[in-house]
Amino acid sequence: MSTFGTIFRVTTYGESHGKSVGCIVDGCPPGLPIVETDIQTQLSRRRPGQSNLTTPRDEKDLVAIQSGTEFGITLGTPIGLMVRNLDQRPHDYSETDLYPRPSHADWTYLQKYGVKASSGGGRSSARETIGRVAAGAIAEKYLKLAHGIEFVAFVSSISSIVMPFVHMEDDRLFPQDFWEFLNTIKREEVDKDPVRCPDKEVSEKMRERILEAKAANDSVGGTITCVIRNVPSGIGEPCFDKLEAKLAHAMLSIPATKGFEIGSGFKGTTILGHQHNDPWVKKANNLGTITNYSGGIQGGITNGENIYFRVAFKPPATISQPQNTATYDGVDGVLAARGRHDPCVVPRAIPIVESMAALVIMDALLIQQSRKTAASLLPPIPNLPPTMNAMFSRTENSTEEAKTEATST
Amino acid sequence: MSTFGTIFRVTTYGESHGKSVGCIVDGCPPGLPIVETDIQTQLSRRRPGQSNLTTPRDEKDLVAIQSGTEFGITLGTPIGLMVRNLDQRPHDYSETDLYPRPSHADWTYLQKYGVKASSGGGRSSARETIGRVAAGAIAEKYLKLAHGIEFVAFVSSISSIVMPFVHMEDDRLFPQDFWEFLNTIKREEVDKDPVRCPDKEVSEKMRERILEAKAANDSVGGTITCVIRNVPSGIGEPCFDKLEAKLAHAMLSIPATKGFEIGSGFKGTTILGHQHNDPWVKKANNLGTITNYSGGIQGGITNGENIYFRVAFKPPATISQPQNTATYDGVDGVLAARGRHDPCVVPRAIPIVESMAALVIMDALLIQQSRKTAASLLPPIPNLPPTMNAMFSRTENSTEEAKTEATST
Amino acid sequence: MSTFGTIFRVTTYGESHGKSVGCIVDGCPPGLPIVETDIQTQLSRRRPGQSNLTTPRDEKDLVAIQSGTEFGITLGTPIGLMVRNLDQRPHDYSETDLYPRPSHADWTYLQKYGVKASSGGGRSSARETIGRVAAGAIAEKYLKLAHGIEFVAFVSSISSIVMPFVHMEDDRLFPQDFWEFLNTIKREEVDKDPVRCPDKEVSEKMRERILEAKAANDSVGGTITCVIRNVPSGIGEPCFDKLEAKLAHAMLSIPATKGFEIGSGFKGTTILGHQHNDPWVKKANNLGTITNYSGGIQGGITNGENIYFRVAFKPPATISQPQNTATYDGVDGVLAARGRHDPCVVPRAIPIVESMAALVIMDALLIQQSRKTAASLLPPIPNLPPTMNAMFSRTENSTEEAKTEATST
Amino acid sequence: MSTFGTIFRVTTYGESHGKSVGCIVDGCPPGLPIVETDIQTQLSRRRPGQSNLTTPRDEKDLVAIQSGTEFGITLGTPIGLMVRNLDQRPHDYSETDLYPRPSHADWTYLQKYGVKASSGGGRSSARETIGRVAAGAIAEKYLKLAHGIEFVAFVSSISSIVMPFVHMEDDRLFPQDFWEFLNTIKREEVDKDPVRCPDKEVSEKMRERILEAKAANDSVGGTITCVIRNVPSGIGEPCFDKLEAKLAHAMLSIPATKGFEIGSGFKGTTILGHQHNDPWVKKANNLGTITNYSGGIQGGITNGENIYFRVAFKPPATISQPQNTATYDGVDGVLAARGRHDPCVVPRAIPIVESMAALVIMDALLIQQSRKTAASLLPPIPNLPPTMNAMFSRTENSTEEAKTEATST
Repeated sequence: MSTFGTIFRVTTYGESHGKSVGCIVDGCPPGLPIVETDIQTQLSRRRPGQSNLTTPRDEKDLVAIQSGTEFGITLGTPIGLMVRNLDQRPHDYSETDLYPRPSHADWTYLQKYGVKASSGGGRSSARETIGRVAAGAIAEKYLKLAHGIEFVAFVSSISSIVMPFVHMEDDRLFPQDFWEFLNTIKREEVDKDPVRCPDKEVSEKMRERILEAKAANDSVGGTITCVIRNVPSGIGEPCFDKLEAKLAHAMLSIPATKGFEIGSGFKGTTILGHQHNDPWVKKANNLGTITNYSGGIQGGITNGENIYFRVAFKPPATISQPQNTATYDGVDGVLAARGRHDPCVVPRAIPIVESMAALVIMDALLIQQSRKTAASLLPPIPNLPPTMNAMFSRTENSTEEAKTEATST
Repeated sequence: MSTFGTIFRVTTYGESHGKSVGCIVDGCPPGLPIVETDIQTQLSRRRPGQSNLTTPRDEKDLVAIQSGTEFGITLGTPIGLMVRNLDQRPHDYSETDLYPRPSHADWTYLQKYGVKASSGGGRSSARETIGRVAAGAIAEKYLKLAHGIEFVAFVSSISSIVMPFVHMEDDRLFPQDFWEFLNTIKREEVDKDPVRCPDKEVSEKMRERILEAKAANDSVGGTITCVIRNVPSGIGEPCFDKLEAKLAHAMLSIPATKGFEIGSGFKGTTILGHQHNDPWVKKANNLGTITNYSGGIQGGITNGENIYFRVAFKPPATISQPQNTATYDGVDGVLAARGRHDPCVVPRAIPIVESMAALVIMDALLIQQSRKTAASLLPPIPNLPPTMNAMFSRTENSTEEAKTEATST
Repeated sequence: MSTFGTIFRVTTYGESHGKSVGCIVDGCPPGLPIVETDIQTQLSRRRPGQSNLTTPRDEKDLVAIQSGTEFGITLGTPIGLMVRNLDQRPHDYSETDLYPRPSHADWTYLQKYGVKASSGGGRSSARETIGRVAAGAIAEKYLKLAHGIEFVAFVSSISSIVMPFVHMEDDRLFPQDFWEFLNTIKREEVDKDPVRCPDKEVSEKMRERILEAKAANDSVGGTITCVIRNVPSGIGEPCFDKLEAKLAHAMLSIPATKGFEIGSGFKGTTILGHQHNDPWVKKANNLGTITNYSGGIQGGITNGENIYFRVAFKPPATISQPQNTATYDGVDGVLAARGRHDPCVVPRAIPIVESMAALVIMDALLIQQSRKTAASLLPPIPNLPPTMNAMFSRTENSTEEAKTEATST
Repeated sequence: MSTFGTIFRVTTYGESHGKSVGCIVDGCPPGLPIVETDIQTQLSRRRPGQSNLTTPRDEKDLVAIQSGTEFGITLGTPIGLMVRNLDQRPHDYSETDLYPRPSHADWTYLQKYGVKASSGGGRSSARETIGRVAAGAIAEKYLKLAHGIEFVAFVSSISSIVMPFVHMEDDRLFPQDFWEFLNTIKREEVDKDPVRCPDKEVSEKMRERILEAKAANDSVGGTITCVIRNVPSGIGEPCFDKLEAKLAHAMLSIPATKGFEIGSGFKGTTILGHQHNDPWVKKANNLGTITNYSGGIQGGITNGENIYFRVAFKPPATISQPQNTATYDGVDGVLAARGRHDPCVVPRAIPIVESMAALVIMDALLIQQSRKTAASLLPPIPNLPPTMNAMFSRTENSTEEAKTEATST
């Protein structure tokens, strides 16, 4: 379906050929200052035509708030957001398309619905992501103002060109300075280069690889790494709605994604338990961890450390090279897509990753606030057994001996 | 929350110290033959004490159906399933635990709830997965009987010991025979060896690695690959509920998971578009693809090919090696967990992966059946434009020329 | 929240002062012919300025489809619908409103959100119902085309002026011809009179009562009765989502409603069980009932008979008579609302009631189609006990004796 | 489906013939003291065999907590609750039942599922309500402890014997002392008489009427009125999830209900707007209303006054009088149900009404707490226009003149 979230809830609509694309953001806290420019910044980072690395079509993607605010302040009611499709050009798509594009959604939409938009991607067009980015920008603004939470995504690999931390030469999972890098990387640094890889040397090679693919009418994929800072501990619902599960859901719902890993990820499966465990240490007013292979989440719940994850994007399916394939009717033939296509969507996907992450954190945070407030309104519990480890009674037990028991698994 | 699914919906309860664990399966189609042994098979594959690779504790995990069937046939009403906690032993856990286990959920549960179970894992115990496996077994039986759908998961790596297809030496993503392997691998072959890796040579090495870790009071992680065969095309809801997004959500909700990749996954980001695209070809009564880098899903919707994905499991956090860490109160110290712990959970996680996959497919299939039936009841559309590519009118257009257009992205 | 439905799902946005109001209809079956005029008909029935019984302001309420269709056919993707607010006139509302209107949402919105729209009703304005009516029109069209389902609502009382069946003089619940009336009443008959009561004599008195209230700057309430014909049996989810529960939810979500009753309703509580029970009788290919005090639903599930229910609307809260009340700050004073107000919303609420009913039936029908299709794909069950009363095996048992047992309640 | 609620969520299972009935309560705040006796009290008020007015079968209905608490304190994890079916007696139901009971769910379940429980009511048995009452008892305890919220339901009519306020002789809607009665009525007073009507004189007549019906192997219906006290203002989600819509949904999901009205209800449609409006007045630290025809809710949101509503229960369908009806196969015949049946369920439904009300309030309160906490964490808004009526800035505007404008409807 086209709805995401439980109490901060986004519903999107729109395809490439319609009048507009947009979304409804329901459940936004009242009293948040939101005007169009707050949203436009992220929409503009998403839009094509930003450099010679992407498709040259210039879509303005100007957002108009339809409801839910007054004098630039949210009212708590649903926020309607709309972006006109200026570049509709249905005539471009008026000729019959006999070939379902390989690895594209043309055929599967037809299988699902028995009917499909004649023009381009329809609902599977990347324009569908505009609503997500617009909604994410609102979530981001709330999270920044109320909690200082920051989302920074960057391109960590294009094809086989990777930032150093992605594959270490030796048996360490990450370089020494990786934790500090996660603490400090900023969106402005990411945007300095159109590739959106903050490592200048690596980004230069990435750019060349993209232009090579473009010249060959081919396409390349890559990965995006995203860090989320300052998320309070205790966020995330155990069992089915673990925070990493929600993040994985959100990321794999972005078009062209093929993988998600959090913290140590796939690499983390290769080291031993005693190497992988993140030791606890006193930090400020709370516990923290020395390393962060957990990626800021334990048992589905945040521990207050940085959350970071990596998302895989395949090379775009629409290429103008001739391809041997078959028509909808199963007749073999050669397809050569016309028009100009994005040789690489990874740099443009940066705000989409940030926005989806913001939607996940926002919803989880609101749910946890509800539980926490609810618990705080209960009267104190007399005679709580010390073994129960309740927050408020815990200090009384601090002289007891420490032992851990086997868990019943 | 503890509920998963929209119209085939599972809600679980239970933690290690309570009277029982279990679940309610709501929305199961009526008329399905289900008795306890249908469920017990998968529960027994999940349970500890099956070999010297796992914790020696023998939990019987006998399931009892409480409701929803009569004479062994489902009634369409909620199926209550219950498994007693025989091995409660609360006395084992009666001493105060001053140390939150590193990389475990002890501390984050306390942060979330302000109170936590005194004994072992509580809700974060792996016993929570019993309800999932029981529910998954019901979904699997339906899918097998009604559609011939099969789920086979196997251990594809333990620590750095990998099945050959995981990391190819050259620039191919998968070996020649990988597609055929996915077509034929069976659960019985997987179960021949306690490691549950169907490659005999590799599995021997894996077993040694696990026993080494066990001897060192340490732990190891690994990956599980799962293939789903015979899923009809058209399953999966575009946009936020793409089938791969739901699978990722399901897999990352399993304890100890750190990553998910589908089809070509992370490796797929390193090749070019023309290499990655799966060409269409006529197969039986429908289209199919020659290669299957897409992993059976395009645009979030199944294309009828095998679905396969890989899940990363970190090394278990609870080890009995002494670890430098801090108490709940932030005092540095050394923690040595008592008792016997699983050096590796990956082989036991096989039925959990299969079950969560079955829950995802079941729910998505039921939703799609609704849409498909609904569409089929509409009267035929007169004069549908040929450009609309409707299934039923498409053949009339087959003489027209094939051109694809740039998608508005 | 602003979302209604599980797999046919409507999300609305908009308030009186914004740029537009509208909705997203997600999960509509593909292949349904839908153009603006299909929706406009019901929107126009809802809009003010239709007669001297309602507010004279002429809101055009022209709907524009943003997405989800091509060449007038639904694609299965979300349908974005938008209606501009032509009559925004924010200057009308620019003066500070010190008084929360009695029995209106002014004060409760402020209590909920801590902030409120300065102008008029904001989200609590009846303009919010435009999205519901637009969405309902789509559901109605599908249900008509695929199942011949019809929704007809009419005004059954205004103030104490009631259609005869509402309160019988003797101890019968309904007049003799009531069942036939439900079978035959048509929308065109309802619309013949601006009051939308199909009983000419009664409607004349209702009109007078409304004009009296208007002249006195006062307002009147009333009830709407709605009949739904041709709903297949088996629709509705037992337990919490009984069809009547969903209908009650839908109706009580309409502004100004205070009550809902289905079938015999409150009157039905006054007769004896043997009078109230609807005896079974063979009808066409199935069972039917002789009387219909059940209102077409038993145990939350449709039985194939007409569904009918009645909804209570209070007199509108906004009146221009001076009222003794208090300011937001609790200072006693006199409020006299300026401007022209609807003396009675009941006639205009007719399409809202029909639309909400259509949304309920549509969603329930789609869910049931899923279950029914799923069950039909299972292989036959051998040796099903005759006592199980399965549909397919039931005829074999027809010679057995009939006995009913006490239910364990 | 069998799940109710968004973040305080109850899922029930069980039918009359199975091993047990029960539920899972997910999302309960941690730190709440809950033991079996907290739940048993309400279960015992629901159970049959309490007086000669109900079925004499003695079901013990002892609840056992399976999970979610430790040392009698909730952990925040799902609470599994189970009640064994002691009185299963499947042999009682072993004979084939050829007749679907008139106005019962026998036939509609068969239409829905194609198969049905051979024994008694199956899922439509009133035993299904045990899970609701158990869950409601937990919600009630939280609401009492944290907010002092009280739920008191009582029988307001049996057949045509009504408490005075239900139908006034003159044109007043309620007697003078009705508001005070709602303030003071207590559960202990209700329970003094087995009919559970707190008006001694009326209750005596009700008892006679029930015994008359019992003697005639017939049944009678009635209504229950429920008051909820001390709900904070601001609870309830506008639009589709108005608090009264949720309450109506909850009440109409109770077996045998046919109607719901809140505040002035159906009677309220007969008076004029100026009579119906509840004037504001300063109360304690907030505004309140002088009358309460609104029933404590305006625009779907609580205003802090008492919430009260009335629910209609039809006479039970299962009677042992012979009834002319038809078999499943459409053959006319006479059905005489064997066994002893409840001549009236209304007194036993009291705790079910209270419990469902508690589930609605609990969920709505938790959601509102989330929004309120979220808004409170935002920095203050500088220069908010006075017209916006924000809570915090409102006092500055108090010298301005009061005018209300026409709402755009």
